[in-house]
Amino acid sequence: MSQNTEILLKQRPDDGNIGEHLFEVVNKDVPSAGANEILVKQTYMSLDPAMLGWMTADEESYIPPVELNDVMRSSGVGKVIESNHPDFAEGDLVMGMMGWREYVVSDGKGLNKLQQGIDEETALCVFGLPGLTATQGLMNIGKPQSGETLVVTGAAGSVGSIVGQIAKADGLRVIGVVGSDEKANWIIDELGFDGAINYKTDDLQAKLEELTPDRINLYFENTGGEIQHHVINRMAEHGRVVVCGMIADYQKDEPAPGPSWLPLIKKRVMIQGFAMPDHLHKSKELTEQLAPYVQKGQIKYRSHIIEGLTSAMEGLNLLFEGKNKGKLMVKL
Amino acid sequence: MSQNTEILLKQRPDDGNIGEHLFEVVNKDVPSAGANEILVKQTYMSLDPAMLGWMTADEESYIPPVELNDVMRSSGVGKVIESNHPDFAEGDLVMGMMGWREYVVSDGKGLNKLQQGIDEETALCVFGLPGLTATQGLMNIGKPQSGETLVVTGAAGSVGSIVGQIAKADGLRVIGVVGSDEKANWIIDELGFDGAINYKTDDLQAKLEELTPDRINLYFENTGGEIQHHVINRMAEHGRVVVCGMIADYQKDEPAPGPSWLPLIKKRVMIQGFAMPDHLHKSKELTEQLAPYVQKGQIKYRSHIIEGLTSAMEGLNLLFEGKNKGKLMVKL
Repeated sequence: MSQNTEILLKQRPDDGNIGEHLFEVVNKDVPSAGANEILVKQTYMSLDPAMLGWMTADEESYIPPVELNDVMRSSGVGKVIESNHPDFAEGDLVMGMMGWREYVVSDGKGLNKLQQGIDEETALCVFGLPGLTATQGLMNIGKPQSGETLVVTGAAGSVGSIVGQIAKADGLRVIGVVGSDEKANWIIDELGFDGAINYKTDDLQAKLEELTPDRINLYFENTGGEIQHHVINRMAEHGRVVVCGMIADYQKDEPAPGPSWLPLIKKRVMIQGFAMPDHLHKSKELTEQLAPYVQKGQIKYRSHIIEGLTSAMEGLNLLFEGKNKGKLMVKL
Repeated sequence: MSQNTEILLKQRPDDGNIGEHLFEVVNKDVPSAGANEILVKQTYMSLDPAMLGWMTADEESYIPPVELNDVMRSSGVGKVIESNHPDFAEGDLVMGMMGWREYVVSDGKGLNKLQQGIDEETALCVFGLPGLTATQGLMNIGKPQSGETLVVTGAAGSVGSIVGQIAKADGLRVIGVVGSDEKANWIIDELGFDGAINYKTDDLQAKLEELTPDRINLYFENTGGEIQHHVINRMAEHGRVVVCGMIADYQKDEPAPGPSWLPLIKKRVMIQGFAMPDHLHKSKELTEQLAPYVQKGQIKYRSHIIEGLTSAMEGLNLLFEGKNKGKLMVKL
């Protein structure tokens, strides 16, 4: 039988550098499924910005870090190749937290079968963590209303692109903030956003004013960075801010300061930080909230696929350098 | 009949300086009450930090500024000395927006009769804007729970002192941030706070950690300043922040930056900016929420009274220099 490769976390990225030096690749025998267990061969594995937090021993974090010498944490999809479990059959496609390894034995808890007709790539891009995050953050925290204006950062990313498309489908004016003209064109031409701001080259304040004539009712924050200050100064009365990610600051020793709170009083703005571990118990409801948009063809995505389990170690840098074009995943 | 002195706003405090040069004192005849009107002789007039905003032509503000050459805006209490209105009798004590003048004619709208047994000073200190602000911000936005820890800035001020006392009565651990040892002693010894931080002399981070062993569930922000950054880093999971005032920044050209939003994600913190004009339509309900605490003797206050209408012009500076000891008001 073939070998089962696993990747263990050996060292924490305390200096912010990520790469092969943090990990150890080990080869083991492929395990077998025991009573009431299944054996899954992972086929696609998701790489996400949150992984930096999982690798770091930060007592302030909302979920425990990966222990040193443990398999690196990740979600993925795979195929059941052996089942002693009444709820799963050989050939079923399943999604869940599988870790950086080729084969995983599971009692089925935390693994969900893919809906009929959903392939592995769509599952990870839309119904995986990014889609559920977009759904919870936008719909259940931000509570968008038709006719409002939304600004979303990281707009070509796995969460931001879904946030913007749901909002467009719900009748909002949607402006996306991105880091390249290629991404700007993609979110306007392919996803139907009303406008895009390139945070690296545009005059942020002028462009934001031009694109949000009625100010900003909803701000979905995935990145942090200077744009945050301009957006807060342009909020409409009773605006809402959903803080989902701050990828610009994840690798900094000292995070950049945030905006003054004066506009929060003037415009009576609400800011809510959120993290998906609080909401994963309602994955089923979130999936049902999101599914109608997918069924109507309102959610497009693109994936950025790198090949082979070991490519994950250096591949993470694509996220922090903003070089991934779409949902980053590893094909095993 | 005696003269009616009024003070008009003649110039905006664009350079941040406040004083007699901004105003004109005019003397007029005392007006008469027409049909369905009352004539009120104002006896106590409230001075509040919000007045700086009212004097400034800031298009971002939530209420229109005082027009140049109009009587300066303020709330106060007074006695009805002439009534052609069925709901008011001569001798009634009333509270409402009266402006910087000795006599005011009103159709009664926006004026409320004081509850039986409430004197003018208590009315302005507890049931005026500060008390309603504390009630709305703490109880209806912050939603305190017994056993939680609250930090309130401007803790010896008119809003902060009531916030802290309501929270104490509701079973919270209450830490107040103040600008002098005298105020620190007052909030601990007289108001029963569990601890005080002098933001001018204490090591903010060390003192905050010492006084909040279980972290901070609720932060009621009246002042802004460096303490804000330390508090945000010390929030507990699902903490709430009520942003009521930022007096430290009202006179600055460029407000100081705020805290990074990273802790908002890690602790899933909610921040809500609020302003009382949104809530004044429920003054009656707010008064009823607050009254039981007053009746049980749980709300102490101190007032800082200056004498004579014209003392208001320079008196405002006491607020911005933090030199008032208790609710600032003018006795006419």
